[in-house]
Amino acid sequence: MVSVIRKAHFCASHRLHNPAWSEERNNRVFGKCNNPNGHGHNYTLEVTVTGDVPQETGMVIDLKVLAEIIEREVIDRVDHKHLNLDVDFMQGIIPTAENIAIAFWKILAPKIPSGKLFAIRLYESENNIVEYRGE
Amino acid sequence: MVSVIRKAHFCASHRLHNPAWSEERNNRVFGKCNNPNGHGHNYTLEVTVTGDVPQETGMVIDLKVLAEIIEREVIDRVDHKHLNLDVDFMQGIIPTAENIAIAFWKILAPKIPSGKLFAIRLYESENNIVEYRGE
Amino acid sequence: MVSVIRKAHFCASHRLHNPAWSEERNNRVFGKCNNPNGHGHNYTLEVTVTGDVPQETGMVIDLKVLAEIIEREVIDRVDHKHLNLDVDFMQGIIPTAENIAIAFWKILAPKIPSGKLFAIRLYESENNIVEYRGE
Amino acid sequence: MVSVIRKAHFCASHRLHNPAWSEERNNRVFGKCNNPNGHGHNYTLEVTVTGDVPQETGMVIDLKVLAEIIEREVIDRVDHKHLNLDVDFMQGIIPTAENIAIAFWKILAPKIPSGKLFAIRLYESENNIVEYRGE
Amino acid sequence: MVSVIRKAHFCASHRLHNPAWSEERNNRVFGKCNNPNGHGHNYTLEVTVTGDVPQETGMVIDLKVLAEIIEREVIDRVDHKHLNLDVDFMQGIIPTAENIAIAFWKILAPKIPSGKLFAIRLYESENNIVEYRGE
Amino acid sequence: MVSVIRKAHFCASHRLHNPAWSEERNNRVFGKCNNPNGHGHNYTLEVTVTGDVPQETGMVIDLKVLAEIIEREVIDRVDHKHLNLDVDFMQGIIPTAENIAIAFWKILAPKIPSGKLFAIRLYESENNIVEYRGE
Repeated sequence: MVSVIRKAHFCASHRLHNPAWSEERNNRVFGKCNNPNGHGHNYTLEVTVTGDVPQETGMVIDLKVLAEIIEREVIDRVDHKHLNLDVDFMQGIIPTAENIAIAFWKILAPKIPSGKLFAIRLYESENNIVEYRGE
Repeated sequence: MVSVIRKAHFCASHRLHNPAWSEERNNRVFGKCNNPNGHGHNYTLEVTVTGDVPQETGMVIDLKVLAEIIEREVIDRVDHKHLNLDVDFMQGIIPTAENIAIAFWKILAPKIPSGKLFAIRLYESENNIVEYRGE
Repeated sequence: MVSVIRKAHFCASHRLHNPAWSEERNNRVFGKCNNPNGHGHNYTLEVTVTGDVPQETGMVIDLKVLAEIIEREVIDRVDHKHLNLDVDFMQGIIPTAENIAIAFWKILAPKIPSGKLFAIRLYESENNIVEYRGE
Repeated sequence: MVSVIRKAHFCASHRLHNPAWSEERNNRVFGKCNNPNGHGHNYTLEVTVTGDVPQETGMVIDLKVLAEIIEREVIDRVDHKHLNLDVDFMQGIIPTAENIAIAFWKILAPKIPSGKLFAIRLYESENNIVEYRGE
Repeated sequence: MVSVIRKAHFCASHRLHNPAWSEERNNRVFGKCNNPNGHGHNYTLEVTVTGDVPQETGMVIDLKVLAEIIEREVIDRVDHKHLNLDVDFMQGIIPTAENIAIAFWKILAPKIPSGKLFAIRLYESENNIVEYRGE
Repeated sequence: MVSVIRKAHFCASHRLHNPAWSEERNNRVFGKCNNPNGHGHNYTLEVTVTGDVPQETGMVIDLKVLAEIIEREVIDRVDHKHLNLDVDFMQGIIPTAENIAIAFWKILAPKIPSGKLFAIRLYESENNIVEYRGE
């Protein structure tokens, strides 16, 4: 069993806001991230797939194939978008890094053609990172 | 003469759009960056100040002071903001990295207490960088 | 369950030295790190907290709160300090990266207000890293 | 139990090619990586060793010793080499990152003098990473 | 006048060898880089274009266009190639980083549609970098 | 004319302190950097040498030779040292990054065997950088 990690990048804007709360509570909990016009990030996504290494290819998964899946299923739907306003699978979800990682897991897990999805790691900035392992 | 470079970070959203143009021309020139709801970046700013090194301090400029000036004059006004909608000094300007760098130069140049502002470098993403030297 | 990782930075000096040993043995084991006047590093600290993601916030832990705890409990006590001479909780402990990570764990584990401390990772330099998971 | 991670670097060329396959199948599976004259990478290797921290040294393993073992057993045999043509322990193995990591594990695991080898991580490029834990 | 820097990446193998010299002299001057089967790198290329910033676009040059030019004129011709054996414009030239940078300059300078090529910077590895400004 | 940049690394401790000043003034100007027991950094040094590219080598300067000069003349004298107490050429000089860069220039400029020293860049931390060009 070997793990393969593929990175991808996207930039997007978002706003952290719970519509069920008062503006005062939103500001207290989400602070600057509650700015009505939103703000944005360059996100880095790391997708880890774990599996056996067949002798005839030496590869857990063809990285070109994995890269294309990540691009088509996830990156194309969030890159240069507003996560709250433009992305169908984030509707009704507060777009924290935690929730984005969980949403990406749900999309990608059934699409991996060999090996199994093991982790989704998302860098929202240099200093803020989340990781979800589907458990 | 020694140059001192101080880095700072902010995250913001923006939209590249020329209101004098048709939507079709905006899309052709600005592509995904013309998304109506905007998108965002983690920007890295590098401010270079050049000057003499006084023997009694060994410093072109006190980096604590330079960091505070950058924070107060620039970062606090753009961090977690929408550059088109929330930032007074970007009104009427297309917020490309080039124009942000020029705007930062105009704000910072008269505020440097020792040495002279030499360059503003702005990383919009890992692969896209601009630099302005006031000429 | 999602893991959230927050980075912080500090710079400090230290000396690797076991007072129970001869100078010759200290030099053999610790080499250049036994320099009597010490040497220093820019340390990078990564604190991982693991927990559930409540629907109303979408956050394992408020990163502002986590950042403040790390700053107050750890960074303020070691930044710009000599770990052997200036830091109370390192007295009587050889300040290797391993021991610093363990000491940080003991301080931070009881202070995490939501989720649980999962890992302390400490980068002493680009090439030397340690990780402690409290086991 | 603490984990210690030591990084090392090497540059090498390789070709992904299965001699039991037709050229057409090699091109379909390995694409540009099947270029007959090869291509190359700056590889980054991370070796993780896990163990107890003896009180008298504060170190899982002496990092100077670990660095020397990595250099002598692995780096010296692959650095500035063609992995298919110049490296004895890669003969008959397709030199994917997965297979290089497994080969390094087999070489290094019996050589670690204190603690146990826990993981071999290999960065083939900024975006492509593999990790092997010997299971 | 603002400078715009665009990064691109490629991986390639090469051999430093002067066919007019004895093997002994090649080994003395080029050392491990003279390995007959070659070795390789992940190269990072930075292309700097300097020019005016038109008010109606706010861009020295459209970065999408610049990225496409770099990809088509340079990256596609060297990526996953052996620089000595597979690349027409490197024939008869020792493929040091210096010579690769000069060759890229000659190719790219006449292709820049707005602004002027100002610098070609090439990272052969983390620690070895060259820059050419066409003078 | 091509510029070649070689990076090197060292870790050291230092204290910013002017013995001609009162403790109060030292604290006001140098803040935490005036801690009596010192603090430390992982410094990154970039040495730029500019020169012609001879056809028979394709190299401004042999990077192995440049790396050895930097190691012997500079790194070996500061690595794992206290800059104020252990380094002869820093005696009587406040060891700010500016002054370290100037001191390195004076040592290295006469030792460069081909091409000319063009710049010394010193990274004291991720966010604080200085550059000296000998003027």
